[in-house]
Amino acid sequence: MNGRITLLTDFGDQDGYVGAMKGVIATHAPNAHIVDIGHHIPAGHIRQASFVLWSASRYWPAGTTHLAVVDPTVGSERRAVAVAVDDQVYFAPDNGLLSDVLAATDMPVNAIELDNDAFWHHPVSPTFHGRDIFASCASYLVAGVPLIALGSTVDPDSLVKLPTPRLEGGGGKVIGEIVSVDRFGNAITNVTADIVAKAGEGLVVGVGETVISGVSQVFADVPEGQPLIYVGSSGRLEIAVNGGSAAQRFSLAVGGSITLGRG
Amino acid sequence: MNGRITLLTDFGDQDGYVGAMKGVIATHAPNAHIVDIGHHIPAGHIRQASFVLWSASRYWPAGTTHLAVVDPTVGSERRAVAVAVDDQVYFAPDNGLLSDVLAATDMPVNAIELDNDAFWHHPVSPTFHGRDIFASCASYLVAGVPLIALGSTVDPDSLVKLPTPRLEGGGGKVIGEIVSVDRFGNAITNVTADIVAKAGEGLVVGVGETVISGVSQVFADVPEGQPLIYVGSSGRLEIAVNGGSAAQRFSLAVGGSITLGRG
Amino acid sequence: MNGRITLLTDFGDQDGYVGAMKGVIATHAPNAHIVDIGHHIPAGHIRQASFVLWSASRYWPAGTTHLAVVDPTVGSERRAVAVAVDDQVYFAPDNGLLSDVLAATDMPVNAIELDNDAFWHHPVSPTFHGRDIFASCASYLVAGVPLIALGSTVDPDSLVKLPTPRLEGGGGKVIGEIVSVDRFGNAITNVTADIVAKAGEGLVVGVGETVISGVSQVFADVPEGQPLIYVGSSGRLEIAVNGGSAAQRFSLAVGGSITLGRG
Repeated sequence: MNGRITLLTDFGDQDGYVGAMKGVIATHAPNAHIVDIGHHIPAGHIRQASFVLWSASRYWPAGTTHLAVVDPTVGSERRAVAVAVDDQVYFAPDNGLLSDVLAATDMPVNAIELDNDAFWHHPVSPTFHGRDIFASCASYLVAGVPLIALGSTVDPDSLVKLPTPRLEGGGGKVIGEIVSVDRFGNAITNVTADIVAKAGEGLVVGVGETVISGVSQVFADVPEGQPLIYVGSSGRLEIAVNGGSAAQRFSLAVGGSITLGRG
Repeated sequence: MNGRITLLTDFGDQDGYVGAMKGVIATHAPNAHIVDIGHHIPAGHIRQASFVLWSASRYWPAGTTHLAVVDPTVGSERRAVAVAVDDQVYFAPDNGLLSDVLAATDMPVNAIELDNDAFWHHPVSPTFHGRDIFASCASYLVAGVPLIALGSTVDPDSLVKLPTPRLEGGGGKVIGEIVSVDRFGNAITNVTADIVAKAGEGLVVGVGETVISGVSQVFADVPEGQPLIYVGSSGRLEIAVNGGSAAQRFSLAVGGSITLGRG
Repeated sequence: MNGRITLLTDFGDQDGYVGAMKGVIATHAPNAHIVDIGHHIPAGHIRQASFVLWSASRYWPAGTTHLAVVDPTVGSERRAVAVAVDDQVYFAPDNGLLSDVLAATDMPVNAIELDNDAFWHHPVSPTFHGRDIFASCASYLVAGVPLIALGSTVDPDSLVKLPTPRLEGGGGKVIGEIVSVDRFGNAITNVTADIVAKAGEGLVVGVGETVISGVSQVFADVPEGQPLIYVGSSGRLEIAVNGGSAAQRFSLAVGGSITLGRG
């Protein structure tokens, strides 16, 4: 590993949770470079966390360790896992949080259940595995312990994946889904650049009762206050309002559907 | 010291305050590893900050420097101090912020008032000692200056402690107090695991007009939407709602009291 | 460069934007020390970002790289630049974000347009230059590439500066402007300590229909709940309420004007 470890959680930063996780890392991996991805995933929103983890981590170099904890069912039977994907290693609860990362790779994946309690931080709190299992095991990996030592091998096919977002064709229509809403109120969908390219210039997107036609390149392509659709920085179709919030204007939220057709 | 320095403040991260503190540290301690605990302590809430500082810092290794600035009376006569506790050193205003850290140790404590202005960053702003005194002195410690050089020795018994949270027994009842409310709306009390264990299985907690009986291990022990009590990840009794916010449901806030009894 | 790189954005930390920028930096500059200034500049507020960037970065040592991205017109014709000021290098859109930094120096400035696409991260998203141009070019600088290699030389006089805040004298009155409102509700103006000193003890500040007279040193100089004016930690006149929010009390916002006179 390269010594870098990133953190992504829904813990916010008004409490001591993130600070305790970082302390555990600093204890077992004194030379670790700890970097925040972010701690304001809406509480318990695994779908959005999965998207954010993929969209950020794909820019990190080989050898990076990622620690992602959005764990609303901590203490239930969900597994704690570490998964090696494309030369990076992800530590997360097996609750779907790795869905987007797993969907994006064509390479073989190695998965481990973190069941070797020699690498846990004891006593283990039943409500805070982020600190006592995930951060602890991840820090040992950063410090040089082999991945395989952290627990039992798991069949990657058994890892929990969120239901694939619907993307239905029929009668010339495609139904897409909103997978994230960012701070600016832009709604990011599961519609890839390929699908947009196939639809071509005549693409028309229906959002509730509003219809937006034509794919823009940048916000400034439409007048201030007007909606636009464009392929965003993650390579997905996004809905925005130039100088405003599409989420507010059109009441958009994660899980909402949009319709693509030809005008 | 081990080169790590953590920051905990109520400055938020929309302003330049935290960035200026980090710049002062980088100036005097070029090799410091700067790590955020968090900057969203509710403004001026010393009680919550004291709890968060303890709950995070106890997971950090020996030799760590902690910089904690929640300083609503900056510029008044309150002292600026550095205190060595259990092989870690804490820089903070002497306003009660170190209460939980001091209460948790059995070891002798060394305390210094930061009155050697050779280690201040001049000119010193009367409203921002976080940058000009605390960050500056802490960075010199990280860079190798001995603690004792930073100022005059202080009697640890003279350090300001917040009033010990009430924990009153009588007629079989115990009165506890809420010391923190986290991002998820869980209320953390000053009732320790020991007290919970003594009360045993029949424990009943009264929160306003609501009574919760039985100690849970994890959220999933109760149905979604139901309240529970459990020993949280800091070893204290907590009140939560599975899949919801106990703070909202029961109007809980720091300083509020709860009642423990036997059903 | 000294290996330190700071980040200031309006991206918040609920999305993957900041994490992707840090990944690009870690890829090209494996030894970079990445430090957050903050990511909660109100969306698109260039004026406030310019003030925050200056107020934080002036405390950083020579050789530091600063990456500041508040870029509401990304994709339009605004230039992407790197500017060397006082032995630090700033990467930012040329939209006024560097106004305060440029106004504060008396030294010659070197400016480069980031038009050498060999140092971009491809493919470049038309809506996220923060990741693909700014972070990428900045990381190469940190890794040892000379500034001059990153693009074409630019006349520093051509860099976009925000209109200088009005500071008008006449009939004994001065009109100042609010340039930032911090988390505590304190309003920071463009009125410098020099102007305050000249006005002397009789200074009277008008905020809407309220008049505040006398310059305080610290909050505790006035009773709790009372307004005060003082020279803040950035060397500018500020308006505050002891134990409260001046922004709420007086409905203050960036761009608002205040009047200085003699009582």
